[in-house]
Amino acid sequence: MQFHHHGYVSGDPRVQPIAGTGVDRPDELPDEVDVLIVGSGPAGMVAAAQLAQFPNIVTRVVERRPGRLEVGQADGIQARSVETFQAFGFAGRITEEAYRITEMCFWAPDPDNPENIIRTSRAPDDATGVSEFPHLIVNQARVLDYFAEAARNAPARLEPDYGYEFVTCEVADEGQYPVTVTLRHSTGPEEGQVRIVRAKYVVGCDGARSRVRESIGRELVGDQANHAWGVMDVLAESDFPDIRTKCAIQSHDGGSILHIPREGNHLFRMYVDLGEVSEGDHGKIRETTQDEVEARANRILHPYTLTVKHVCWRSVYEVGHRLADRFDDVPAELVGTRTPRVFITGDACHTHSAKAGQGMNVSIQDGWNIAWKLGHVLDGRAPESLLDTYSAERQVIAQNLIDFDREWSRMMAAKPDELGDSNALADFYVKTAEFPAGLMTQYEPSLITGDAMYQELATGFPIGKRFKSHPVTRLCDANPVHLGHHHRADGRWRMYVFADRPQAGQPSKVWDFAEWITSSPQSPLAYTPEDADIDAWFDVKVVYQQDHVGVEINAVPRAYLPQVGPYACVDYEKVYAADPADDIFDGRGIDRDGVLVVVRPDHYVATILPLEATDELATFFESVAGGERYPGV
Amino acid sequence: MQFHHHGYVSGDPRVQPIAGTGVDRPDELPDEVDVLIVGSGPAGMVAAAQLAQFPNIVTRVVERRPGRLEVGQADGIQARSVETFQAFGFAGRITEEAYRITEMCFWAPDPDNPENIIRTSRAPDDATGVSEFPHLIVNQARVLDYFAEAARNAPARLEPDYGYEFVTCEVADEGQYPVTVTLRHSTGPEEGQVRIVRAKYVVGCDGARSRVRESIGRELVGDQANHAWGVMDVLAESDFPDIRTKCAIQSHDGGSILHIPREGNHLFRMYVDLGEVSEGDHGKIRETTQDEVEARANRILHPYTLTVKHVCWRSVYEVGHRLADRFDDVPAELVGTRTPRVFITGDACHTHSAKAGQGMNVSIQDGWNIAWKLGHVLDGRAPESLLDTYSAERQVIAQNLIDFDREWSRMMAAKPDELGDSNALADFYVKTAEFPAGLMTQYEPSLITGDAMYQELATGFPIGKRFKSHPVTRLCDANPVHLGHHHRADGRWRMYVFADRPQAGQPSKVWDFAEWITSSPQSPLAYTPEDADIDAWFDVKVVYQQDHVGVEINAVPRAYLPQVGPYACVDYEKVYAADPADDIFDGRGIDRDGVLVVVRPDHYVATILPLEATDELATFFESVAGGERYPGV
Ligand SMILES: Cc1cc2nc3c(=O)[nH]c(=O)nc-3n(C[C@H](O)[C@H](O)[C@H](O)COP(=O)(O)OP(=O)(O)OC[C@H]3O[C@@H](n4cnc5c(N)ncnc54)[C@H](O)[C@@H]3O)c2cc1C
Ligand SMILES: Cc1cc2nc3c(=O)[nH]c(=O)nc-3n(C[C@H](O)[C@H](O)[C@H](O)COP(=O)(O)OP(=O)(O)OC[C@H]3O[C@@H](n4cnc5c(N)ncnc54)[C@H](O)[C@@H]3O)c2cc1C
Repeated sequence: MQFHHHGYVSGDPRVQPIAGTGVDRPDELPDEVDVLIVGSGPAGMVAAAQLAQFPNIVTRVVERRPGRLEVGQADGIQARSVETFQAFGFAGRITEEAYRITEMCFWAPDPDNPENIIRTSRAPDDATGVSEFPHLIVNQARVLDYFAEAARNAPARLEPDYGYEFVTCEVADEGQYPVTVTLRHSTGPEEGQVRIVRAKYVVGCDGARSRVRESIGRELVGDQANHAWGVMDVLAESDFPDIRTKCAIQSHDGGSILHIPREGNHLFRMYVDLGEVSEGDHGKIRETTQDEVEARANRILHPYTLTVKHVCWRSVYEVGHRLADRFDDVPAELVGTRTPRVFITGDACHTHSAKAGQGMNVSIQDGWNIAWKLGHVLDGRAPESLLDTYSAERQVIAQNLIDFDREWSRMMAAKPDELGDSNALADFYVKTAEFPAGLMTQYEPSLITGDAMYQELATGFPIGKRFKSHPVTRLCDANPVHLGHHHRADGRWRMYVFADRPQAGQPSKVWDFAEWITSSPQSPLAYTPEDADIDAWFDVKVVYQQDHVGVEINAVPRAYLPQVGPYACVDYEKVYAADPADDIFDGRGIDRDGVLVVVRPDHYVATILPLEATDELATFFESVAGGERYPGV
Repeated sequence: MQFHHHGYVSGDPRVQPIAGTGVDRPDELPDEVDVLIVGSGPAGMVAAAQLAQFPNIVTRVVERRPGRLEVGQADGIQARSVETFQAFGFAGRITEEAYRITEMCFWAPDPDNPENIIRTSRAPDDATGVSEFPHLIVNQARVLDYFAEAARNAPARLEPDYGYEFVTCEVADEGQYPVTVTLRHSTGPEEGQVRIVRAKYVVGCDGARSRVRESIGRELVGDQANHAWGVMDVLAESDFPDIRTKCAIQSHDGGSILHIPREGNHLFRMYVDLGEVSEGDHGKIRETTQDEVEARANRILHPYTLTVKHVCWRSVYEVGHRLADRFDDVPAELVGTRTPRVFITGDACHTHSAKAGQGMNVSIQDGWNIAWKLGHVLDGRAPESLLDTYSAERQVIAQNLIDFDREWSRMMAAKPDELGDSNALADFYVKTAEFPAGLMTQYEPSLITGDAMYQELATGFPIGKRFKSHPVTRLCDANPVHLGHHHRADGRWRMYVFADRPQAGQPSKVWDFAEWITSSPQSPLAYTPEDADIDAWFDVKVVYQQDHVGVEINAVPRAYLPQVGPYACVDYEKVYAADPADDIFDGRGIDRDGVLVVVRPDHYVATILPLEATDELATFFESVAGGERYPGV
């Protein structure tokens, strides 16, 4: 955490210096905004927290509810989400209060006594070490609280505007605020009254029944029928031995349960499978009573029993696999000719079962993806064409998720003998762990993702995948740190310069690169506004091959030790040394002749280049972040 | 973190259920209180946070300042303090924002060129692994903020009463509120007006110039003269290579510096030695200007330079080694015949140099020590004689600290050639690490600390020292956890039952002990009030020798799986298994025939017994916590 460099911070350092639109932010929703986010679910709140880092931009979030979410909805937090929380500054705190999954247990009918269930296997969570972050369970409400805090503490001091329902919107061909949005007060003294707001961009984060989606004429296409679960968050007594372990439980004829222990060491959630819902059901399934769900749970758990003492939340959750073909308002045939103005994210554009625990997670990645791009375009850092990459990147991910979820749901619903092997489910769980951890996402080459030309220079950083962290030593204070955990969700591009062999101070590529990046007119740093810190748009960090005792700090080029803030303090958090006990060059397969790894603001590897490929680097940033300044807000 | 078992907690789970005096806590200071804490420094605030866990007790904190501390004073946080923060629920959060010391560097004159300093050694912090907690640097203000939050979130919802100055107090021989305290409004419209408050007990946490100390006639005795430092928290430019590393810097003739990097990655503190202050100085030293301090710093750092850009805080800190002979109001000859009513803690009873970075840390341990004891006595859990142990235990610790600090200061002040070996200072630092880490404290046998009779049954838990944690696996959810980190500062005694060899469910000592503890009239659990949870006063945890797969949870005696809260939820956080990768039985030298380790509410090992020594256990608790109920509040 870096602070004090703008003067002494006496209180909570998580509160960042206020700036720009944050200074006089009106309490009331203004008539004109740059970005209007609709909905304060996971997709909307991550987008809010990200855009709050761009204090030149007027961002508002409208939400139909009168206040924060209090209970219910999703609770599964994959490693990629925790990695995201780290970038937003609350991974540690939410991990402290969450339930942590270290094993998943599988239960099936006892072959000798099919009316009894027995444990058939225990599968470790993340057996292969796909992430250093844990797999957590915590209520969606708390995730939203932390994102809300991040938004409120960010320079723009963003807070949601509760009590506004989105009704519809229209996109004009021109004008500074081309989207006209019709809202309605959903609570309070003005309830029912209409309110018009004009926006440059609208982000629809309004869930499965999205009105934003409707108003741009997109449709969710997929399963005819829904699948339903009786979901309950309960305090209960049970002799089921794995009551504090995540379990998939299949009974011989009573159906199945997905069992999820919850934060706080007492509460748990059960998803009791209620099966496919026929089209003619007309919501009847939702009348399933709590008694019925408990009775069914007891049948499945036999010979164990469950006595519910207190129901904290319950729902009949009905969902099908459905997907929109595009995630913005530009018809396929017009892509590239028109700037998208309205985007849809999360449940508004894709839905799937709760079984793989993906809903909240994928929505968070959608929201982050569109938000930094809007930030860059509105801030004048990138061309509007950047916005086309949102739908292109995220629609594929949603399709993959639906495919995965279909397979996983099919396997969980199958009778044990249909799967052949009693370990089939556990094997699938372990083998595919990277997917549900959220770490299989790999973006295709585009404006912001390079091709694989130099991939072999750093095999452990697959281009288009998220930057996988590794331990290093921070040079200035000999602290063992995780390189990737210094990635903040601050909208900056990052360049990780992995030094070549010579010692600091000796003629080397890392030295020449420093020269070029600070002084060449082709350097991306040249696009940084003159009144901003030199690292305001591009964060350049260096990692030496020597250990921290082997690098003399005064011999490190000043490019990697920039002076920032009103007091021109040196930022020492940019120079690292390999940790001999766990060398990042070996661990991530980095060429010892020096490599540059460029990382996007959302943490994905954009491109890999040799240190001397400065022309290619200049070209990469020319099309995405420079060449000229873009008009901006 | 455990929550939800009293019903769903929708917001921050760090806010505990409100209870007792917390429910209608008056904003205004009442005329009669159980405990009056004077001063909201580290000693006062830890005492407040601890007593706020006893909601039957009316505790108030008066503080002269109009509000929270904003800047300055101490910043060194030893491992024992972080361990304490863990018990109060904020170790993770404060560690995130603190500077972490991993190395200390020593600089001395270059023998060839004495006007230049050179690095003579690097000493790792905690080379021998005395604690799993880090050594931190963070401003005292933030430590106080976190304790204040803990107090505010505790059942009693305690907040300091700012703007009251303690003037004096008198102790009567009898009456329900025998201490009459005279306060004066120190700010606000009533400034200067006197206010009388009557208390059962007063805790003087009012710093080095303690009026509480004065009013009970105790005196600080010690050095004639003070030592002075020019202290500055600054943002500065410097080519000194270790500017982000803790350093002791000795120059050939310019004096010495203790250099402390600070939280936030930019700020640092320098203690520039101003030498002994003669008695005739009359505060002249305090006129030392910032320019003089900076000039001196530059002379010491030569050939490196320092240019201060911004001074966040500065002070001339003057202090000597001084100690009160007793820490309460009972004259030595009357100990045991009269209950102490007034206590002094922290700087009010001992002062020493800033060099060993102990001031805030030792004060925290003082405050915690007296607070839980007052809680127990006022809650009717323990006899008043428990209060005699406060002065007896803490005065010795303060004496040890002064001895250590004298030695350390002498070595730091000595010219390198006087020490003989250029590594003498670094060697001393590494060899004595346990002391400044706060972990050498070992209480003598007393009412609450047993003798060494059975020490050999668990050699890694020295009786009288703090319970050193070790990794284990929590049985219910296979989570790798640190056993000691489940120790909350909730005023409970803890019994760690290390199981004998048989598997859970087999005849064993651990089973017999469970029987005895739940059903014997001699069991300490019998003292627990009937309307309280069975684990409200005594937290009994079991650790099996088998790994977590080898223990069947349904075979664990119910004594270790009690039902708590309004919904009688099983508390699963009490059953652990050894982690084969780092077996606690080996790691802490625990006899495999089974051992009971009793731990005090402040985390110190009280006694060690064989599992069958139930008579001895009963006897131990009879004198400290039972036998009869004490009258209480
Ligand atoms: C009732 C319910 C129960 C669920 N249960 C589970 C579960 O048990 N397990 C699981 O994995 N997933 C569950 N989900 C799904 C999971 O919560 C979603 O996948 C995830 O929240 C998607 O995030 P999102 O931001 O896209 O949308 P949401 O979290 O749905 O957020 C949409 C937000 O937009 C607001 N909104 C909607 N329409 C408007 C409008 N017209 N104007 C203004 N605001 C509007 C909503 O109030 C809401 O705050 C549930 C969802 C719901 C709605
Ligand atoms: C100005 C100053 C600078 C310091 N600088 C350093 C340093 O650089 N390095 C270092 O290691 N240590 C320093 N210390 C010492 C360190 O802060 C203490 O060792 C530590 O704070 C002791 O904690 P405590 O709770 O005993 O007392 P304190 O932290 O001193 O707290 C005492 C509290 O009591 C209040 N108080 C005092 N008198 C009254 C009264 N009559 N009525 C009501 N309230 C009263 C005070 O306002 C204060 O809040 C400094 C102390 C002071 C006062």
